[in-house]
Amino acid sequence: MVKEIKGGVCAPKGFRASGVHCGIRKNKTKKDLALIVSDVRCAAAGVYTTNLVKGAPILVTKAHLADGYARAVIVNSGNANTCNANGVEIAEGMCALVAQSTGIPADDVLVASTGVIGQTLSLDPIAGGMAELVGTLGDGSTAAAEAIMTTDTVKKEIACTFTVGGVTCKMGAIAKGVGMICPNMATMLCFITTDAAISPEMLQKALGADVKDSFNMLSVDRDTSTNDTLLILASGLAGNGKICADGADFRAFRRALAFVTTRVCRMLARDGEGATKLIECRVEGAKSKKAARLAAKSVVCSNLLKAAMFGADANWGRVLCALGYSGAALDIGKIDVGFRSAAGVLEVCKGGAGIPFSEETAKAVLSADEIRIEVSLHDGAFGATAWGCDLTYDYVKINGDYRT
Amino acid sequence: MVKEIKGGVCAPKGFRASGVHCGIRKNKTKKDLALIVSDVRCAAAGVYTTNLVKGAPILVTKAHLADGYARAVIVNSGNANTCNANGVEIAEGMCALVAQSTGIPADDVLVASTGVIGQTLSLDPIAGGMAELVGTLGDGSTAAAEAIMTTDTVKKEIACTFTVGGVTCKMGAIAKGVGMICPNMATMLCFITTDAAISPEMLQKALGADVKDSFNMLSVDRDTSTNDTLLILASGLAGNGKICADGADFRAFRRALAFVTTRVCRMLARDGEGATKLIECRVEGAKSKKAARLAAKSVVCSNLLKAAMFGADANWGRVLCALGYSGAALDIGKIDVGFRSAAGVLEVCKGGAGIPFSEETAKAVLSADEIRIEVSLHDGAFGATAWGCDLTYDYVKINGDYRT
Repeated sequence: MVKEIKGGVCAPKGFRASGVHCGIRKNKTKKDLALIVSDVRCAAAGVYTTNLVKGAPILVTKAHLADGYARAVIVNSGNANTCNANGVEIAEGMCALVAQSTGIPADDVLVASTGVIGQTLSLDPIAGGMAELVGTLGDGSTAAAEAIMTTDTVKKEIACTFTVGGVTCKMGAIAKGVGMICPNMATMLCFITTDAAISPEMLQKALGADVKDSFNMLSVDRDTSTNDTLLILASGLAGNGKICADGADFRAFRRALAFVTTRVCRMLARDGEGATKLIECRVEGAKSKKAARLAAKSVVCSNLLKAAMFGADANWGRVLCALGYSGAALDIGKIDVGFRSAAGVLEVCKGGAGIPFSEETAKAVLSADEIRIEVSLHDGAFGATAWGCDLTYDYVKINGDYRT
Repeated sequence: MVKEIKGGVCAPKGFRASGVHCGIRKNKTKKDLALIVSDVRCAAAGVYTTNLVKGAPILVTKAHLADGYARAVIVNSGNANTCNANGVEIAEGMCALVAQSTGIPADDVLVASTGVIGQTLSLDPIAGGMAELVGTLGDGSTAAAEAIMTTDTVKKEIACTFTVGGVTCKMGAIAKGVGMICPNMATMLCFITTDAAISPEMLQKALGADVKDSFNMLSVDRDTSTNDTLLILASGLAGNGKICADGADFRAFRRALAFVTTRVCRMLARDGEGATKLIECRVEGAKSKKAARLAAKSVVCSNLLKAAMFGADANWGRVLCALGYSGAALDIGKIDVGFRSAAGVLEVCKGGAGIPFSEETAKAVLSADEIRIEVSLHDGAFGATAWGCDLTYDYVKINGDYRT
């Protein structure tokens, strides 16, 4: 039984967090530096962007995670520290600052950055803010979640309890990401903590398997970021028998992880740049899991479909079009399509051809702020879900002048 | 020597065209039916969408083109005749109507449709308009170009002269396409005529090779249409020695074809839905032709880059980001990026890292209505060019309520 609770990354035993404004951003009311620290050394795992252009922090985090353990994560917003000649030096410098202030070895500190690409990041404001950042460490999941926001309009935080071998464990996460979102092995930034005891190998296995159905099924704009980073730290303080192999305990852990990551994906999609609606596409009856994923993701990625959802226009031809170029094997003549929201259900296509529907009902169903597109391929037993958002005037506005 | 001339599809010897309003569209001032007819049977070739959802007209056109010859093309706008149970019947009916009115065998008539997907297309208005359509056949390339427009704001027409074996030949084209543009073996609709004598086999070979560097390098919104159709008809009336093999004559024909298709691609990109700017990305120094194409197309496809171009924002990190996820093999540390327009040149990135530039110059360069993004990979000898447009409020507006 996975159950939602409050507390974010500080809900699991052993974790403290904080978030402050240190001056990377000019706006003094906007926090720009976050820290998550564990009381004990944690098993840790990560997945990262597949973009060939990788933020320097990713290179440093990978090196520090090579042994499967970590104790802290430092994150700044306002600058991606990417495509800068001194990027690795700066990222190492951030870890060294945490080490000096906390006594945690620098190679147990992970680092991530988000913001504009190609502008040199200075260590000065980070060094200046370190005393406050470390001094305020505590129940600061919300402050940390705020400090990693860029054009996010809401902070993303989630936590849950679950049971492993009769022992209650907790898991929590903070995340950010609104544009340049088409994760491929990870989203922009997401940090997960848990007090479950689990080996680094099983933690990496769980994370790697989970993203296929969570972050990799999410798209705001098909632009895979250079800084995508998903990290998980497991303190082991819950007291469960350490998960070192497949089995019921590992499955329980996987279910909790899926609960957290799926909820984060929905939060990210709903707050996509300029978005007014969460768009969820559920594909059933696919020939293979791969076909189901390709089909569902293609639908939520279509600019045309996204603009139609913004306009509450039941232009289902765009769903079929997106299915058709998805690369998924499918039989067009068998496809059923419907739209579902809190306002009702609208069947629009049966066996690949249009069926009559009420434009009034269509407007009502599609005016909700959460739309589910239901696709039945009648071609097999596999399903998948993808998340995205509508394409709006505000997406264009936000991205027409991001740097200034 | 390829030289631009007037006349569109009627410039080459033997071709007549017309365009009328027959009533598929409610707006009586908008033409919705076009016809191109050759005085003689033509060698003909086509390439079509790779979308698994294919418009019924494509199935009929493929069948009628199976023998490599054709004499006429009928095209309607306002309805794509796609995802309808009776689509093939209607498309065959359109060819039969042309046959009845002109005496051309129905299987020498090709057919294409463009407009909304999934609404039944009635033959009635087409039958009613046939007398006027055939009666006005003549120097009507412009009328035909107008009749195939959907949300296009300008008609697309081009013609040129070229020389094959000392004989002057002509080639002309009309095209349409503004949204759902990410051709994959063809664009929305483009019809090319030529009076050069060439075998069907060499014509198909020329067309298939050409699209790799023309229509397949064009994207407005990454949505590959269900009805993409590119057709070419060669009357042979120019009197050149028939091109039946590779050689100088075939190369001359290929150069003329590339002139026409490249010009059409630029017209389509410039008139992309809501676009205010033509974005051209030129990639040089790639390891392979494939890498060059992947890299150039990825840049013009990026929503983020497109929005930045709309805002005249020199956010070159988005160019690097798009190159990084393009799938092209490249060495980030060697990449140079610059922006060029009629207002000047702006170097922004050298060796994968930012260089200082004047924001004033940047605004001036990027405020032009035609922007060239120049990428040097310094990694090989191959180059490619891709075309796209900016992402604007109007794209969202046009597509938020397309059907009504």
